[in-house]
Amino acid sequence: MKKFDILTPIGILVGISTLLFAVFTNAGMGSVVFFIQLASFLIVFGGIAAALLINFSSQEMKALPRVTREVFRYEEHDLNQLIDTFVNLSTKARREGLLALEAGLDEVEDPFIKKGVLLAVDGIEPDIIKDIMMAEVVAMEERHKKGRLLFEKAGEYAPAWGMVGTLIGLVLMLQELEDPATLGPNMALALITTLYGTILANLIFLPISSKLEQKTDDEVFVKQIVVEGVIGVQSGQNPKILEEKLSAFVRENGKDEELEETEELANEA
Amino acid sequence: MKKFDILTPIGILVGISTLLFAVFTNAGMGSVVFFIQLASFLIVFGGIAAALLINFSSQEMKALPRVTREVFRYEEHDLNQLIDTFVNLSTKARREGLLALEAGLDEVEDPFIKKGVLLAVDGIEPDIIKDIMMAEVVAMEERHKKGRLLFEKAGEYAPAWGMVGTLIGLVLMLQELEDPATLGPNMALALITTLYGTILANLIFLPISSKLEQKTDDEVFVKQIVVEGVIGVQSGQNPKILEEKLSAFVRENGKDEELEETEELANEA
Amino acid sequence: MKKFDILTPIGILVGISTLLFAVFTNAGMGSVVFFIQLASFLIVFGGIAAALLINFSSQEMKALPRVTREVFRYEEHDLNQLIDTFVNLSTKARREGLLALEAGLDEVEDPFIKKGVLLAVDGIEPDIIKDIMMAEVVAMEERHKKGRLLFEKAGEYAPAWGMVGTLIGLVLMLQELEDPATLGPNMALALITTLYGTILANLIFLPISSKLEQKTDDEVFVKQIVVEGVIGVQSGQNPKILEEKLSAFVRENGKDEELEETEELANEA
Amino acid sequence: MKKFDILTPIGILVGISTLLFAVFTNAGMGSVVFFIQLASFLIVFGGIAAALLINFSSQEMKALPRVTREVFRYEEHDLNQLIDTFVNLSTKARREGLLALEAGLDEVEDPFIKKGVLLAVDGIEPDIIKDIMMAEVVAMEERHKKGRLLFEKAGEYAPAWGMVGTLIGLVLMLQELEDPATLGPNMALALITTLYGTILANLIFLPISSKLEQKTDDEVFVKQIVVEGVIGVQSGQNPKILEEKLSAFVRENGKDEELEETEELANEA
Amino acid sequence: MKKFDILTPIGILVGISTLLFAVFTNAGMGSVVFFIQLASFLIVFGGIAAALLINFSSQEMKALPRVTREVFRYEEHDLNQLIDTFVNLSTKARREGLLALEAGLDEVEDPFIKKGVLLAVDGIEPDIIKDIMMAEVVAMEERHKKGRLLFEKAGEYAPAWGMVGTLIGLVLMLQELEDPATLGPNMALALITTLYGTILANLIFLPISSKLEQKTDDEVFVKQIVVEGVIGVQSGQNPKILEEKLSAFVRENGKDEELEETEELANEA
Repeated sequence: MKKFDILTPIGILVGISTLLFAVFTNAGMGSVVFFIQLASFLIVFGGIAAALLINFSSQEMKALPRVTREVFRYEEHDLNQLIDTFVNLSTKARREGLLALEAGLDEVEDPFIKKGVLLAVDGIEPDIIKDIMMAEVVAMEERHKKGRLLFEKAGEYAPAWGMVGTLIGLVLMLQELEDPATLGPNMALALITTLYGTILANLIFLPISSKLEQKTDDEVFVKQIVVEGVIGVQSGQNPKILEEKLSAFVRENGKDEELEETEELANEA
Repeated sequence: MKKFDILTPIGILVGISTLLFAVFTNAGMGSVVFFIQLASFLIVFGGIAAALLINFSSQEMKALPRVTREVFRYEEHDLNQLIDTFVNLSTKARREGLLALEAGLDEVEDPFIKKGVLLAVDGIEPDIIKDIMMAEVVAMEERHKKGRLLFEKAGEYAPAWGMVGTLIGLVLMLQELEDPATLGPNMALALITTLYGTILANLIFLPISSKLEQKTDDEVFVKQIVVEGVIGVQSGQNPKILEEKLSAFVRENGKDEELEETEELANEA
Repeated sequence: MKKFDILTPIGILVGISTLLFAVFTNAGMGSVVFFIQLASFLIVFGGIAAALLINFSSQEMKALPRVTREVFRYEEHDLNQLIDTFVNLSTKARREGLLALEAGLDEVEDPFIKKGVLLAVDGIEPDIIKDIMMAEVVAMEERHKKGRLLFEKAGEYAPAWGMVGTLIGLVLMLQELEDPATLGPNMALALITTLYGTILANLIFLPISSKLEQKTDDEVFVKQIVVEGVIGVQSGQNPKILEEKLSAFVRENGKDEELEETEELANEA
Repeated sequence: MKKFDILTPIGILVGISTLLFAVFTNAGMGSVVFFIQLASFLIVFGGIAAALLINFSSQEMKALPRVTREVFRYEEHDLNQLIDTFVNLSTKARREGLLALEAGLDEVEDPFIKKGVLLAVDGIEPDIIKDIMMAEVVAMEERHKKGRLLFEKAGEYAPAWGMVGTLIGLVLMLQELEDPATLGPNMALALITTLYGTILANLIFLPISSKLEQKTDDEVFVKQIVVEGVIGVQSGQNPKILEEKLSAFVRENGKDEELEETEELANEA
Repeated sequence: MKKFDILTPIGILVGISTLLFAVFTNAGMGSVVFFIQLASFLIVFGGIAAALLINFSSQEMKALPRVTREVFRYEEHDLNQLIDTFVNLSTKARREGLLALEAGLDEVEDPFIKKGVLLAVDGIEPDIIKDIMMAEVVAMEERHKKGRLLFEKAGEYAPAWGMVGTLIGLVLMLQELEDPATLGPNMALALITTLYGTILANLIFLPISSKLEQKTDDEVFVKQIVVEGVIGVQSGQNPKILEEKLSAFVRENGKDEELEETEELANEA
């Protein structure tokens, strides 16, 4: 089950607070208004939108709301429970036969595990099961990569379009140098699109793209353990060896490392 | 069958509108004329053309119109229908023998599927069929990569040649600082080639190159399913298992995800 | 056993001294104060923190203190002793049987070697032992990569947020060009966030990220030797051949190279 | 047989014309002389030469004239004729035996095909033939990569050394700000090395490096077809299947695509 | 045997001459002194040193003198002689048996060949010999990569620290704009650290890092031929086939290419 990922909105809030703080300490709260330039915003956003429209197909664009929502959710993977599940399945399969697994499948929530076990119960060969399950993992990876690419590309186009806005502003400013007094404010205005492009890329698009990449890595990792588990159950592997094998993937070192640290502290004390 | 990809012209339109809007909000519609500098345009385009002429062979250059047209077309892949096709072929092959497949091939539109099934009917071994079909996929990938490279390289050279134009303008301007009044307009003129280079790269060349890359990925993906399907049919695999195997590639999770979302909304309500 | 890595604090000290020296030689020690701008510091740090909060999950963020401490520690790997360990284990296994190894395991400190030997004693097949041990190595590599990514991404966001701070300062400065006298100091102030971003990236984040990468490489390298050693012991390989095999990994060339150099010097003399 | 590649000199000509045009439209033909600064040229070239001398060994430097000439030549590969050759060889081998192939080898021009067929005639096993031929392909690829690297690295160092020249000019200019009238011309002069570095990289070095890379890809592609062909002939594969296999590599889709286009036009009309 | 690589010092000399020439043509020899700023030098070097100290472990830092010396040496590999050696060894082994090889090993200088042949004489299986020898090759590659990384990272940090020095100079200059007359010289001074950073990266660190990479590639290439040779000798392969196999790696095409060129010239004449 997916939970609300509070870190994403917190990060955005911290970023906006930092920006407000930066303006405030420089020039007081009154100057904040100057930084909210609808036109600059439209230029940067219009440019990014134009580039993305050319870059992606309509089918890929449709994934945007789904991918965006994904950014605010995370899934906790209880790897120890996952291993327990497979140890239990393995024990049951060795005692009562593979067919007996079908009965207890209702307790298993994860549809990917269910599918794998059903394939095993159907008596399909391990190699084909592995092929089928890994094909699904690879297809998921590809799908996620496409979704992530929307943000990654936006992060690449954002600074460029910020610069386009600034260049346009500079050209107009330089072209009509009638009143030196307007030079400063005009240039300030021109720089705001660069500011927008940089912030959009480094606060929103690139961090989100990177987060999505890591979430996919995590999910692939968990699914690979599931595949190993299903194959182990299917081939009637000894539950103890299966547990050993699956545990190798899991970060049990965590405990060791903490113990080690405690010892060290003890030694230093 | 390929359809017209409306997103590409829409993206270009949105981009141009954004640029017009940027000039308009800064300095009124009258200033738009100033940004249309034929000379600047010729400099940036001449430079890109020169670099591409050195970069590519005449055979590769000839692919440009074909690749350009590809940017405005897209192909919808009905993966579920594709799987149905192979389930039907597989059922027929198991019932009536591989030779019976030849008769029904007229209904199959895709030449790649046709070719694969004909190879299977000819009694060629699965490994060789896979070799032949994958060789065609790899050759297609290479060919597409070459076509895409035209735009990718143009996207790399565009900002550099924009900068070359600006540097030439700056050098000339600095060399003859007689009249300070001309300083601004001259520098504005110089900056326009940088503006052109940046826009060409980030509105046209790079998004197009990226789009072509993803279209190739999609096509390779579909063709890999076809290869798996043909091998399955040829080796007399159980139609149900074949369906399972091919479905693993397909995004049926889509439905699950939507269901999940609906449930969530229900829970939240 | 891990030791304190004195080089990390020395490097930071050298970096800070260099910065102080740079200010001092330019403008005397009095100017140092000007470079300590809490607000600039908060802007750069706030921005990096915001980006990291969005970029990472809470579980990944929690690894920060552990990874940070890792930067100040290093582990010396005595590869020759490691090889000796396996030669001894191999000799014992051939003389007294695999089961005899369990008795002497208390002398072995490394938990990874222990685990491997215990798997061998349990009579598990070499292929499965290799799978289990390599799964642990790969999982460790992934875990370290995630930890390292915290610093790598910080190193990417730092210059960008330094630039954001400078842009904000510039915009405010240009917007209110009332008093030309304040132009210089205001711009100096604006540049300090860029300075902070550059220093943070190139003195702290990027070097640390690179160091962590190399430490992981070293650890993976050692663990691969252990896996080869355990498999050799398990399969009853001749201790001499096993020694030859494991020694191939080790930099014994070091000695040869030094010898070669001495000879050269002798020849030159 | 290699032919003269007219595109390379055309590209260089187009590039130089573009540059002349840029100067001309800005300031008339008289200003062109100002852009020909021998000293700037020597600085950029000296710097690139220095970096390349350190970067490469004397053996690698010696390849420069040969690689340079390669840039002005191209080889047309008639893939259909290549396939015909192998179909003929295969038919002959099945009818008259492998030994009969030696007699007709005089007609084959390509030394790589000759070598492969001779290995087959000598009765060497397919696996070893493949090893030998692929070793030659890989060695060729490595050799070409080394030659290409000369241009790739020159393209990396060129802008950096252009900037070095500009920095030196700026420092000298700023250091002696006696006469404001010389400020402009001096800065113009300083910028010319940056201009040279950018042009050298983006008109000459990078496009050439990229062209060489693609030529190598083409050659490797053709040689892989040859290897497949020789193995097919040697193992007595059915000529029809061999043709099918080799044709899969070839872009016969070209015809299909053109047909498809014609149909579309017909439909639109 | 390694020889002195004259190109490295020549390259450095050419680089320094170019820099002197650049200053000289701009402002006469008297200005050279201005470019030798010990403080700027210390800032850039101190910053790079600080970053490297954090980046590397003490063991890796110790490799610096050895790696530096490697930059001034090169090894000529006579590949034809190498192949002769293996053809002789192979002929001898087939005539007199593998054991007879031990006697003639004194003539073989290369310790890697010696080791391989001794393993073959010991009757160890080809697969294990290959494992052992390739392990040594991979370990060497890793070791060289670590050494090269010292220069690669220095080349990455150098421009950044040059920029840090310039930023500090700019901030100090802008902060105290009392005397406009000092503006120029102060900014000139500030730019010199950027100049140093750029030169260090593009004349010294990056070219050296790239040279080391290619030397490693060469060495790996030669060692792979040795491994193939030893396996061929051990498995009693026909000396003629072995020669054919090893020759495939070697650039004998060189001769063909030259011949081809001569013919062309003849045709053109």
